[in-house]
Parts: sequence; C-alpha cells; structure tokens
Amino acid sequence: MKIKLNENFKNLSKNYLFTEVAQRVERFRRENPKSKIISLGIGDVSLPLPRSVSMEMARASIELGKKEGFRGYGDTQGNSKLREAICDYYAMRGVLFLPSEIFINDGAKSDLANLGDLLGDNETLIFDPVYPVYLDSSVMSGKRVTRFFESEGFALGSPPKDMRDKALVIYLCSPNNPTGAVLSRAHLQLWVEFARKSGSLIIFDAAYESYISEPDVPHSIFELEGARECAVEVCSFSKMAGFTGVRCGWTAIARENPLYDMWRRRQSTKFNGASYISQRGALAVLTPRGLSDCRKNIDYYMENARSLAKFFEGMGVRFSGGKNAPYLWVRCPDKVSSWQFFEYLLTSAAVVCTPGVGFGTGGEGYVRFSAFASREDTLCAIARLEKALRVR
Amino acid sequence: MKIKLNENFKNLSKNYLFTEVAQRVERFRRENPKSKIISLGIGDVSLPLPRSVSMEMARASIELGKKEGFRGYGDTQGNSKLREAICDYYAMRGVLFLPSEIFINDGAKSDLANLGDLLGDNETLIFDPVYPVYLDSSVMSGKRVTRFFESEGFALGSPPKDMRDKALVIYLCSPNNPTGAVLSRAHLQLWVEFARKSGSLIIFDAAYESYISEPDVPHSIFELEGARECAVEVCSFSKMAGFTGVRCGWTAIARENPLYDMWRRRQSTKFNGASYISQRGALAVLTPRGLSDCRKNIDYYMENARSLAKFFEGMGVRFSGGKNAPYLWVRCPDKVSSWQFFEYLLTSAAVVCTPGVGFGTGGEGYVRFSAFASREDTLCAIARLEKALRVR
Repeated sequence: MKIKLNENFKNLSKNYLFTEVAQRVERFRRENPKSKIISLGIGDVSLPLPRSVSMEMARASIELGKKEGFRGYGDTQGNSKLREAICDYYAMRGVLFLPSEIFINDGAKSDLANLGDLLGDNETLIFDPVYPVYLDSSVMSGKRVTRFFESEGFALGSPPKDMRDKALVIYLCSPNNPTGAVLSRAHLQLWVEFARKSGSLIIFDAAYESYISEPDVPHSIFELEGARECAVEVCSFSKMAGFTGVRCGWTAIARENPLYDMWRRRQSTKFNGASYISQRGALAVLTPRGLSDCRKNIDYYMENARSLAKFFEGMGVRFSGGKNAPYLWVRCPDKVSSWQFFEYLLTSAAVVCTPGVGFGTGGEGYVRFSAFASREDTLCAIARLEKALRVR
Repeated sequence: MKIKLNENFKNLSKNYLFTEVAQRVERFRRENPKSKIISLGIGDVSLPLPRSVSMEMARASIELGKKEGFRGYGDTQGNSKLREAICDYYAMRGVLFLPSEIFINDGAKSDLANLGDLLGDNETLIFDPVYPVYLDSSVMSGKRVTRFFESEGFALGSPPKDMRDKALVIYLCSPNNPTGAVLSRAHLQLWVEFARKSGSLIIFDAAYESYISEPDVPHSIFELEGARECAVEVCSFSKMAGFTGVRCGWTAIARENPLYDMWRRRQSTKFNGASYISQRGALAVLTPRGLSDCRKNIDYYMENARSLAKFFEGMGVRFSGGKNAPYLWVRCPDKVSSWQFFEYLLTSAAVVCTPGVGFGTGGEGYVRFSAFASREDTLCAIARLEKALRVR
C-alpha cells in the first residue's frame, strides 16, 4: 500500500497499561495457581444493574420485535424524552439547559476523543497523570500537547500563570480519574475565569459526578458562572448506573458556544446514535426509582472507598481520593516505583492495583486502587495489604 | 472563544438532504391535512425485529440485572463469540478471517467516517452521487476529494485510466446507496487490481450485501483475490437485520494490511464497544434461525422492490437497482430536476421520494425510491404514481 498514513500514530506510546497489567497478573496466576487474586485495579463497575433499569431494557427489546413498538433510526441528537430527562437532572442543581443542547452518545470516551474533530491547531493542556484518552486522541490528530504536572501528584492544579494570554484547549476531569481528587467550586471558578479571559475551551469530563459527597464540589462545570460560553461537558451513565457494557452518555454544549453547530454537524455525519434499548435504559435511570436504585450501588462502592481510605490513613500512607470518587491514589512507600510497588503487592498479597505511571510520567511513584470490587474482596484485600505493608 | 477551530467545516455543504425533505413534506401535510402521504423516501427499515432476536436481547437485558449475568466493559474489539460467528458468516462464501481481524462497531456509519483518522493527505476518490458520509467526513478532516461522476448516473464506474500511478483512497459501495447498482465480480476485480498496482486503499461499504440476489455479484470484496492487502470492509446489521435503532456492525481488516494495528489502536483509544445487548442480538441474528428470520424480512422488502421495478419498466422509465438492493434510482422524465420531480410527485400523488441531487451534483435529474415501506403502501404508491405519470 502506498497511500499516506497518519504519521501522528507513530508518536503514540506503544504499551497499553491495562494489557500490561493483565499480562503480569496472568503470569502470577500461572506461577501461583492456588492463590486467590483480588483485583482493586479495575475501573469497571461490578454490581448488576438495578432491576428497574434492566427490566425497562428488556421491555424495549421485546417492543422492537412488535409492529407497533419497532423503532429504526432515532433522532440525530438522541431520544427527545431522554434529553428532557437529562435537562431535569441538571435542573436539580440549578443548571438550565434546553433539550437541543444535549447530545446523547454511546458513553463519555467517544465524545471526549471525538470533540478533537472540531478543533484546529491549539496548544492542548492535559494534566499528568491523566485518563489516557485525552492525551492519546490529541496525539493521534497531531495536536500540540502541553502536559501539566500536578503538585505532588495529588491536587488538581490551578490555571498556569505563564499562559495568561494563550487560548488553550483544556481537559479537566473532576472527580478525577486516576487521582480521585476534585475541584472545589472556588478552584473550578478560577479555571472558568481563566478560560473566559484567555479565550480557551474547557472540555469537562464529569463521568464521576455522581460519586461526589461534599457540598462544595460542583457536579457540573455549568454550575459556575460563565461556563456556558467556554465549556463543553461530557457525562456518562457508565459509572453512575453501571452502563459500562450498555453504553450511553451525553455531551452538553450551550447554543452560544461556537462548537455547538459544529458538533451537531459532526455527530449527524459521523455517528448514528446510541442503541434505542440503551437509551430506554438511561431513561429508566433518570426516574426517581432509577436514581434511588443507582444511588444504592454508588453508596456500596463508596463504603468500600471509605474502608480503603480509613486503612491507608491508619497506615500513615499518603493518598488522595476515596471521598468524592471511587478511586484512591496512593503514594508508594520508600520511593519505590509504581511498577515495583505493583509487583510487590501482587506477589506478597495477591492484590492487583494500577501502576500510576501508566497514567503518565507524573504518576510515577503512585498506584491507583478502585472501590469497585465486592465488599468481601475489598475487606479481604485490606487485611492482606495490612500484612504486606507491616512487613516492609 | 479564541481557540482555533477546524476550518474545514466551512467547506461542508449546509443543508442536510433529509431535513429539507422533511420540511417540504411537513409543509405539504399542513396544506393538505386530509391527504395520506406515503413515503418511499426513507432509507430505514420498517419491519419489526425477528422474535428470536428481540427475545435474545430481552434475555441479555434481564441478565445484566443479575449478579451472575452482569457484564461491564467488553473486549476492545467486541464479543469474541460474535467475532467468531462473523468469521463463520464469511466462511459460507469462502472468505477466511480470524476473529482478531473483525472489529465490532455500532453500525457502519461511524467506522466509514472514522477510518479517515488513520489516513494522511491522499487524493480521495468518491463516486457522485454518493452516500454523503464518505464525502462529508473527508471534507471535515481536510482530505483532498476527487469526485467521480458515474456514466449516465447509473453504473458504478471503472477505475480511472488517468490515475493509474496514483495511490488513492477509494470509497466503493456495492450494492450501492443511492443508485442500487452493483459491481459484478469482474468489475470489482478491476478495482482490486487497480488498487494493488497503484498502492491504493479501498474502503468497501457492504452494508447492503444481504440484498444481493444474483450469483455474479460478490457480497464481500474479500471474495476477490488480492483484496486482503488493499481493502477494508465495513458491514452492518442495520439493513441485514433491522438494527438501525439497535446499532451493531463490524469492520474487517486483514492482519497484513498496514491499517490493522492503527485501527486497533484507534478503536481502543476512541471507542468503548457496541452495547452488550446489541451484540447479543447480533449473535442471535447469526444463528441459522436468526438468518432465516432476517431473510424473510429481506424477501418482503425485495418483493416491494420488484413491484416498483416492474412498474417503472412498464412505464418506460429508466432506472437502476431494485434487483440486488432495496433502492431504485430513477431518471426524472422530461429532463426536470430532482427537486422539481420530487415536488410533482409529492403534490400530485402524495408520494415522497428522495431527490437524487441530495447525493451530489451527479445525482441531479434522478430520484431514489426505497423498498422499505409496507406492501400495502408500496402498491398504493405505485397506483398513484401511475396516475400521476400518465397525466404528465
């Protein structure tokens, strides 16, 4: 083949974090067949869907098999009832959107990556450590990426002082994956003001908003004044309602945002909507019954997070997260590297975490624990970790 | 906002064909409230899903609500059983693929557009008239597009003689949307040989393959020798199994194709898989029972296509399609324009078709009829069309 390929792909890092983790775990399993491995590495939910949601999707499936219930292509922006329900969901926090400002997607990942289609050659500000999708999708399309090291690997930093006049594309994720840190209202307002003054765009990833427990942490960037003109928000039912396999989420863009018309055109050209069944499921999530059922699952995970946090506190280990997010971002003791600590916990405790360096060089010296395992596994892992860390 | 936007969007044509059609139909409906409009314009299926498929999706939905049946993120390339079933489907025609060469998607549209992410600055060959997604997605990403007028608007042309040495990106769609024309084995072999000699890439859209009735028409480009190195094929359950709302399809790329690794990386970065429920439905489609149920629906539509073809033949109207495709591409009589003929049929017969010029300037002077309406509506539309065309 002699056609020209996208050369930017050569600038991508080769190894995919979770593949490497899986390979190392597999090797340990082979060498220790009797050992019961507990994974606190996964970023995937584990509880079944609420019955109210799964049954609604079953109903939708059956309806598709009947003449009067069949549905083909849906509305380009997604089911209008679902978009109205999302507007109601925002309204509970005082955020006002029109249904026409909501775009249903198949989960946050696609849109977070695809929004790049609308952008020209800008400097792109990405935290380090970071959810790899922002970085990799930016590199793939040849965007200029400025990585942004977080202070001590924990807090989500403030707007950079040396860039006051530059119009940037800024990816913010709060509650943060992987660090579990959050932006307070005052802190996020600084970012919005920076974006407005500099003419920047904030792409706000709110996939973990439903894990927030503290009142001072905004669930949506649109709770802040001035965000409508400078921000786009991507959200998802994945972590909120266990939809990681079902695939549904949304992107909110205000009409006055110059990206609005472009995104509409992009989506009508390059996307054909989320599954009708998934959208019906999402609609069931946003009923009072669905929200309360999902809340129970989130509470279950956050109880795990609290147990983990209490344990690390007791051990005097430094960490962030675990309060408004299902992740704990833990400093490796004795200055060992992420992969060394990963290996130590795997071999001495048969507990799997995620090496922080996999989220960027800024994550070196950290590992991530997730709260998505079962209660039993979480408590058992904690007991094993205690032993392993006391020995060290 | 002062960030740089993707300027290529300015080169997109503004009006979306089906929006304009919908607006004109709506106006007619308002002005003629008693008239029963029949749409043969839609490219969307209308029959309900086979019960075997809808019930399997209902089962999958219910399982997601149970501890032992819950599934989160799936395999990056899609459910491995589904990929094996697709390989078996190909094997029925003598095409051999490994499951690792199949990538499950959420329908053909996304992948047909997203494959452009892998490509550099190439000359892109696109037929005219054409399914707008190839053109619009190419324009959006600033690709150099060479439009290719079909001879008399009917046949799918041959490889261009003046481009023998140029490595091109070529979009081929057979059976074709909108013209219903097909590439015979010999004709498609010419394209494959051209691609191999020139180092070109063929992106083959096989979304309508299950409508083929003639033995000389290949269902897959991979039935032809030499295609593995130069072609990528995108296929879908949308028209094959009524999945336009369910969203599932696949892309096949051979390992020896340099795009293979890139696509794998692209999909793992920018896509999180089709819905688990949709994939379970697709798996049900590919059982003997599912295939036979879907065949009945296709036969129903193709009976409509035959009635339409017989009618236009009897009227001495020139057209293509209707034999291996659910579309008929009809020459407007008396050299009237696409929109004029559309308006005439709407106002005199209350029948909706799709103006050919909406698929590109090469489609001017044609309209497209679809076979996806009910039998009753199709026969009623034919009776009205006969009257309207006799009067002219």
